[in-house]
Amino acid sequence: MTLPIDPAQNLAALIRCPSVTPAEGGALSSLETMLKPLGFAIERPVFREDGTPDVENLYARRSGNGPHLMFAGHTDVVPVGDEAAWTHPPFSAAIANGEMYGRGAVDMKGGIACFIAALARHVAEKGGPKGSVSLLITGDEEGPSINGTVKLLEWAAAKGEKWDASIVGEPTNPETLGDMIKIGRRGSLSGTVTVNGRQGHVAYPHLADNPVRGLMTLTDALLNPIFDKGTENFQPTNLEVTSIDVGNPATNVIPARASATFNIRFNDTWDAETVQAEIHNRLDTASGRRKYRKGRKEPVDFELVWKDRPSHVFLTRDDKLIETLSGSVAAVTGRKPQLSTSGGTSDARFIKDYCPVVEFGLVGKTMHMVDERVALDDLETLTVIYQRFIEDWFG
Amino acid sequence: MTLPIDPAQNLAALIRCPSVTPAEGGALSSLETMLKPLGFAIERPVFREDGTPDVENLYARRSGNGPHLMFAGHTDVVPVGDEAAWTHPPFSAAIANGEMYGRGAVDMKGGIACFIAALARHVAEKGGPKGSVSLLITGDEEGPSINGTVKLLEWAAAKGEKWDASIVGEPTNPETLGDMIKIGRRGSLSGTVTVNGRQGHVAYPHLADNPVRGLMTLTDALLNPIFDKGTENFQPTNLEVTSIDVGNPATNVIPARASATFNIRFNDTWDAETVQAEIHNRLDTASGRRKYRKGRKEPVDFELVWKDRPSHVFLTRDDKLIETLSGSVAAVTGRKPQLSTSGGTSDARFIKDYCPVVEFGLVGKTMHMVDERVALDDLETLTVIYQRFIEDWFG
Ligand SMILES: [Zn+2]
Ligand SMILES: [Zn+2]
Repeated sequence: MTLPIDPAQNLAALIRCPSVTPAEGGALSSLETMLKPLGFAIERPVFREDGTPDVENLYARRSGNGPHLMFAGHTDVVPVGDEAAWTHPPFSAAIANGEMYGRGAVDMKGGIACFIAALARHVAEKGGPKGSVSLLITGDEEGPSINGTVKLLEWAAAKGEKWDASIVGEPTNPETLGDMIKIGRRGSLSGTVTVNGRQGHVAYPHLADNPVRGLMTLTDALLNPIFDKGTENFQPTNLEVTSIDVGNPATNVIPARASATFNIRFNDTWDAETVQAEIHNRLDTASGRRKYRKGRKEPVDFELVWKDRPSHVFLTRDDKLIETLSGSVAAVTGRKPQLSTSGGTSDARFIKDYCPVVEFGLVGKTMHMVDERVALDDLETLTVIYQRFIEDWFG
Repeated sequence: MTLPIDPAQNLAALIRCPSVTPAEGGALSSLETMLKPLGFAIERPVFREDGTPDVENLYARRSGNGPHLMFAGHTDVVPVGDEAAWTHPPFSAAIANGEMYGRGAVDMKGGIACFIAALARHVAEKGGPKGSVSLLITGDEEGPSINGTVKLLEWAAAKGEKWDASIVGEPTNPETLGDMIKIGRRGSLSGTVTVNGRQGHVAYPHLADNPVRGLMTLTDALLNPIFDKGTENFQPTNLEVTSIDVGNPATNVIPARASATFNIRFNDTWDAETVQAEIHNRLDTASGRRKYRKGRKEPVDFELVWKDRPSHVFLTRDDKLIETLSGSVAAVTGRKPQLSTSGGTSDARFIKDYCPVVEFGLVGKTMHMVDERVALDDLETLTVIYQRFIEDWFG
């Protein structure tokens, strides 16, 4: 029985499975083929929820006597975009100039391919880790994320699974392998503020109440002042107004309603509840000001609706986990990785409720783009880093 | 031959013609029936333009030796809205509690009905005015106004028609007959400002450029400071932002573009050119400020597109016309009408290029609403006012 010690071969097999969310596309079956010879027990739970597509997931465990390390990731990929614009077909795993092309090459079939190769080499060379290793792989990370990691964790925990640490294989390096380990993530919250005015004719503004003025006052209060200046481990909290919508086609009509939607990425100065309270407070205070309509006494009439559930901010404080990974990266690449909490959210925000979690994978530059690709050298280097990490963490 | 001396009877005939723009609905033919016995020569030009419905119009002239007075108006009406909500059917001309119900009762079939009755009484009592009277009636005032008054004026002028004064029969009185004569109108201009930013992920705002911040800066500059404090004859110039549109459904995406549409109603401090220059200047100056994004040096990248053609501001300065009308109103109602330039635009803005023009008609309270209606007493009073005005102006 040959072991899957070649990350490029593992990755090519995965890229050839067209697993655009929510399609399994053969990717999880391909993983099974790689994991079986390594002694994994494999389960393929399917999760369902009204209004969302059914999604296949995979949980594989190689049991041993010792601590339990979880590798987490996803085999689903984002759509290919303009297929004609790709230099090589997006599900071909074509190699050119030392790079393998394909959707998911770095985000994140590549990370999974390297971790499996690392473990296979460890098994081949030293008989495998003194403890348990599991792979928690979802097919719903790029989609609605309803039938993925959250349910997979609940499902595994309900079976009695416990983990001591987790590494997520997302592409964390901005430019070069070894740049950056993620040790936490900012929180994220979205909401929509709607101001109710009074419709009327533009020629009779005193008979109407233009909600745009009130909305500008409230939007100004969302943006100013700044929320904080950042903390030791986090960037400053930042709010972006992602849309403003009135939708009034008639230039002689003052509209009845105006809405602004915003997203805030907040650091560990806050939690979801204190951010919500701050925003409520800003809006309530500003609603009494009416900067843009002197002489009008009533406060701005507004509603605030929060969207989706918040992503909670977290910071991992497991020295063994962070230092072992950081040391492996430095030993292999000669570069001391930055310990960062920048960027968007990831499934690490769900895992952190079960065990300490860090993230390290390939270089993210081409993710979600046409011609997503990975250097074969990077696949080899990441495999060596993961192998060293496994040996050191269990050792 | 009976003369159309009863304004209620004239109005009932007109209301029963369902002349919702652009339909003639029989309304112009009904006018012909009333005007023929008064000695009018009647023409019914139809105007056409690509992309708009053909519209019927009417020009009637009763020639005499002396000055030429034009009465202008429209027989088209706005849609009835929720017909079931009307107390009496909108084309029934039903009378209840001394009021006649129907779409167009005050805007402005009523004004036309009264003017014809006034002229008929003058003809019956004194043989008619010493001069010429014409009626310039369009079927395209409430619609796109493309195939209406503008073309009718050009058409008549091309035939050699000249007028010494014009009265427009729009409902000018806010509450009570005799409240208000319009002696001019503010100008009106609409435009859309679009800010171009750079799309990106909300987690990486430094890689993107949120156009909403730039648009807020520009919109603030449109609204502040005030344009003027008003003039002797005009209200202050006022700008309303009628819509803001981004249309970005993704709360994790910073949008590429954001637009604000505005309308400005300007007084005789300005003309269309100076208002446009002022707005350009405000936007250019503000675009360098970037109030909401410190540290960013480039100016806000924006485009300004003007919509439609501007409506020009005008003020009528014909003492004989204004004082004769004002005196007639005062003599009949005992109230001194306010000489106003408030409210929206009207076809008077086109007529003013041909002769001095004032506007006086019924009470506008129910115009464009369900249960549009007119007091029979008002019809009689307006008829007496118009008759006195005709006698005095020609006399
Ligand atoms: Zn990913
Ligand atoms: Zn009208």
